[in-house]
Amino acid sequence: MESASVGIDLGGTSIKLGVVTPEGDVIARSEIPTPTGHPREAVREISLAVKKMIDSSGLNPLRIGKVGVGTPGVLDPQKGVVRSAANLEGWNDVPLRDWLQEDLARPVRVMNDANAAALGEIRFGAARGLTNLVLLTLGTGVGGGIVLGGKVIEGSRGLAGELGHMRIEMGQPRPCACGLFGCLEAYAGGKSLLKRLHETLADDIQEISLLQEKSKRETLTVEDLFWAAGEGDGLMIRIVDETALALSAGIANLLHALNPEMVVLAGGVSRSLLLLEKIREYLPDMALMAYMENFQLCTSGLGTDAGILGAAAAVEDLA
Amino acid sequence: MESASVGIDLGGTSIKLGVVTPEGDVIARSEIPTPTGHPREAVREISLAVKKMIDSSGLNPLRIGKVGVGTPGVLDPQKGVVRSAANLEGWNDVPLRDWLQEDLARPVRVMNDANAAALGEIRFGAARGLTNLVLLTLGTGVGGGIVLGGKVIEGSRGLAGELGHMRIEMGQPRPCACGLFGCLEAYAGGKSLLKRLHETLADDIQEISLLQEKSKRETLTVEDLFWAAGEGDGLMIRIVDETALALSAGIANLLHALNPEMVVLAGGVSRSLLLLEKIREYLPDMALMAYMENFQLCTSGLGTDAGILGAAAAVEDLA
Repeated sequence: MESASVGIDLGGTSIKLGVVTPEGDVIARSEIPTPTGHPREAVREISLAVKKMIDSSGLNPLRIGKVGVGTPGVLDPQKGVVRSAANLEGWNDVPLRDWLQEDLARPVRVMNDANAAALGEIRFGAARGLTNLVLLTLGTGVGGGIVLGGKVIEGSRGLAGELGHMRIEMGQPRPCACGLFGCLEAYAGGKSLLKRLHETLADDIQEISLLQEKSKRETLTVEDLFWAAGEGDGLMIRIVDETALALSAGIANLLHALNPEMVVLAGGVSRSLLLLEKIREYLPDMALMAYMENFQLCTSGLGTDAGILGAAAAVEDLA
Repeated sequence: MESASVGIDLGGTSIKLGVVTPEGDVIARSEIPTPTGHPREAVREISLAVKKMIDSSGLNPLRIGKVGVGTPGVLDPQKGVVRSAANLEGWNDVPLRDWLQEDLARPVRVMNDANAAALGEIRFGAARGLTNLVLLTLGTGVGGGIVLGGKVIEGSRGLAGELGHMRIEMGQPRPCACGLFGCLEAYAGGKSLLKRLHETLADDIQEISLLQEKSKRETLTVEDLFWAAGEGDGLMIRIVDETALALSAGIANLLHALNPEMVVLAGGVSRSLLLLEKIREYLPDMALMAYMENFQLCTSGLGTDAGILGAAAAVEDLA
């Protein structure tokens, strides 16, 4: 009788693995640097790490069943193929699912990492017991995952959930890293926040911002921005305000389109309480009242194991 | 053996009924003015019209099985209750499904009319054979219906698909009839188009617009606006342009979020070929390339029977 799954969180710099119980306990874990060789070799190294971790878990290996993988990049989720991934050099049309199944002799499901994270929140996290959820990952960029009726929405070609590229501004749209204009990511992605931080400091000839001095000594981060805003730095508050407005608009769009029970914010940028507070303030003015009833806006409930738990949750309905 | 369904298109001024074959042929039809009495009486009148139509169809009544109803307003789709409907006076918490089932002794499904229209396109119309579709209804306002994996997305409280209230403008948002700002409907709804038409004519002190003369003699319509734009009226072309940009932004948002195979435009405003042409021109600049591959933008394939066919399609998976 199987009692646990394996979750693999495939990142550009490291790969995190865990043995996850049905209750969401991570009872064994491991981490390896992302292998840089030929993809087939890299996948063999990942498989080896999985086997070692299973051995070290103390569980009878036969009780560890399915394997879920959350990966970045563009996938064919049906076939479990990684079409391309900016952070994984040389990974073009890699049949990740088939290779892992070959190595591990276990059923494998490969899923976009943000989609997996959304399933993780439903199975183990903030959205436990719910069936309609949208997750926004606020990292360097903005990504997303949509779960409706308990199922991940993958779209006709596995490309659904790119919520960072919803357009929220027509008149004066900012350019986005993707080449489009007015995308949510251009207002709420960490990279865009830092860009505005530096633009603001460059314009700040009266050196009002608390960050002017620090910026001369060290590289500023998004955390610095939120810290300064929390300390009352007017210039930084303006950036946080604009970010909150943009996220509120994006969330409002998702509410009207999909009427979810919950939106979960995950990723580094979501850790700002000030930002969350401002979104909670602005959102009711951007959504029709009925959509705010029985609706919750939360941050991720999964902590640092989010990637592993999401990947493990992805195997839920795998035969 | 059942061979046809009944579709009921419940409108504010008239109710259209049809007997629909599995092939999408409307083999009998009827239309009655929307009854204005107490809702229970009104539903009895509708049921009577259904029975008369079934009798006149020539089919053995036993071969006419399920009944689908497309209604405006706010519903509880699970219970088949009309919570409220701006166009149906006094219809508050009306158990439409149960009353119709009582009168007609047939299984009934009640569905938001735009959701039903989306199912109609999949079963009988432009999206036949597809499973992931978004429909935008461009009438006085802007509504929508989303079908993913062949199922209508109703959301946690039956409110999904209000695509006219996605926010596409933050900086200089127009007020929307719903009380919010920057909604797609404020840029692409028929009412908003007419408002801009009149604002434009009022500002047009040199009387450049082809519509100035006509506006003094008669009430202008959206058709006049599109006609004048088609004739090269620069002021009207600007309104059509802005409408196309707004719709492209809204469609792009839906592409990135849901990756559908098709977006269908329905309703009066969608009949402008000029508008469609401009959306086809602008959309590729607002969506990432991968989302435009194997994607089609179409107008409704259902013609004047769209409401009846949509309602009949809504019964598909009814037990």
